[in-house]
Amino acid sequence: MQTDTICGFNAVAALFKRRPDSVLRLFYTDQARAAAGPFCAELARRKLPYRLLPPDEMAKAAGTPHHNGLAAVARARVVPIMEPADPPREKMILILDGIGNPHNLGAIARSAAFFGVRTLLINHVPGAALPSDAVYRTSEGALEYLDLYRSRDLPTLLRELGPIYRTVAATLRPGAIPVADMPRDRPLALVLGNEEYGVSQAVLAACRREVRIAGSGLVQSLNVAQAAAVLLHSLRPA
Amino acid sequence: MQTDTICGFNAVAALFKRRPDSVLRLFYTDQARAAAGPFCAELARRKLPYRLLPPDEMAKAAGTPHHNGLAAVARARVVPIMEPADPPREKMILILDGIGNPHNLGAIARSAAFFGVRTLLINHVPGAALPSDAVYRTSEGALEYLDLYRSRDLPTLLRELGPIYRTVAATLRPGAIPVADMPRDRPLALVLGNEEYGVSQAVLAACRREVRIAGSGLVQSLNVAQAAAVLLHSLRPA
Repeated sequence: MQTDTICGFNAVAALFKRRPDSVLRLFYTDQARAAAGPFCAELARRKLPYRLLPPDEMAKAAGTPHHNGLAAVARARVVPIMEPADPPREKMILILDGIGNPHNLGAIARSAAFFGVRTLLINHVPGAALPSDAVYRTSEGALEYLDLYRSRDLPTLLRELGPIYRTVAATLRPGAIPVADMPRDRPLALVLGNEEYGVSQAVLAACRREVRIAGSGLVQSLNVAQAAAVLLHSLRPA
Repeated sequence: MQTDTICGFNAVAALFKRRPDSVLRLFYTDQARAAAGPFCAELARRKLPYRLLPPDEMAKAAGTPHHNGLAAVARARVVPIMEPADPPREKMILILDGIGNPHNLGAIARSAAFFGVRTLLINHVPGAALPSDAVYRTSEGALEYLDLYRSRDLPTLLRELGPIYRTVAATLRPGAIPVADMPRDRPLALVLGNEEYGVSQAVLAACRREVRIAGSGLVQSLNVAQAAAVLLHSLRPA
């Protein structure tokens, strides 16, 4: 069985709230004893193990020093392929085309949930970050509120989403539509690209439009997690 | 002499562009030979050292594996105290009250430069991140375009800035003004707080207003670097 180790209070609390049946066991330190209480009680009811650990053992059990005293082991989520014949019907879906840094994925998931965008599609290309311990931790629980999908052939999927969604790629190209001018009259499928290379050519070609964030020109671009927040804030469903 | 080791092409290029006289020496790997060429030529003119290093020695010289083949050693910048009697006159200044994570500071600096906000004031409290190798690297050169200041007594400084700047703290409090409703008729001094605790009570009390980013309620907050990008985008000078 594939498992994730989910660390930190917010991530663990969201896990227990959203998919308690996935939790297998819990570790905590003395410092987090009070916070762990309700989670331990729930595991006790379900006859599942929980254990107080000294700090050095905790870092080993958590797989990271950034556990804030709480680490839950949970069955890994299955991230299904999005079926073009039956796509989710949302006002906005966020699509990641090759985001490689787990911290960026976690931060983007957090921003998506914060702005109420609940569908996240990850193009399953080599090097793309998928949900992992670091992503769960960085997302501060947000990942639990998102419907996650993968795609195997994103250009084809984007073309098939076209009748339902306005497919828009975020780029740096001067010809792209400034975010303030992007029409918001149709459901939006927003595509963000890789940290270094941006949206791939094939994906760009499959999108109907391009959007850009106007800048001062002093530096070329924003970090993708910051660009995501700005675009989600500007384009999110009312 | 205090020095910084500044890594990555964008950060090194901005360093050579903005304060070439601060550069003391350069290291590069074979992979970055072409990119290093113009920098080596400049150092040769100034009779300063540059050296091709094998990858393992490069990581040691750079102090990080994230050097992308280029590392310049430069005199550390002096970050002056902002004098309330003679503050900079800008349309917007960004103030950080206890941002602790160097990657957040770097990302915020990058967003500030991207949106043309060139004055960054760091409240010099214990735990506050100041420019460092990690900050330079994460800012992708943006730090070189910013005027950096420190403050020793931020509440007093904010009160003294009051006649020139609308002093606004970013908070999560429901009574804060939604960012879309914030008036933009006066120069703005925007304060962002610590990753965990937000803006300190004394600083909050010294600000005239509070601003918040409206969210869905699914998760409590954005990461501070994402909140900074959204606020800079929404409130930046036209």
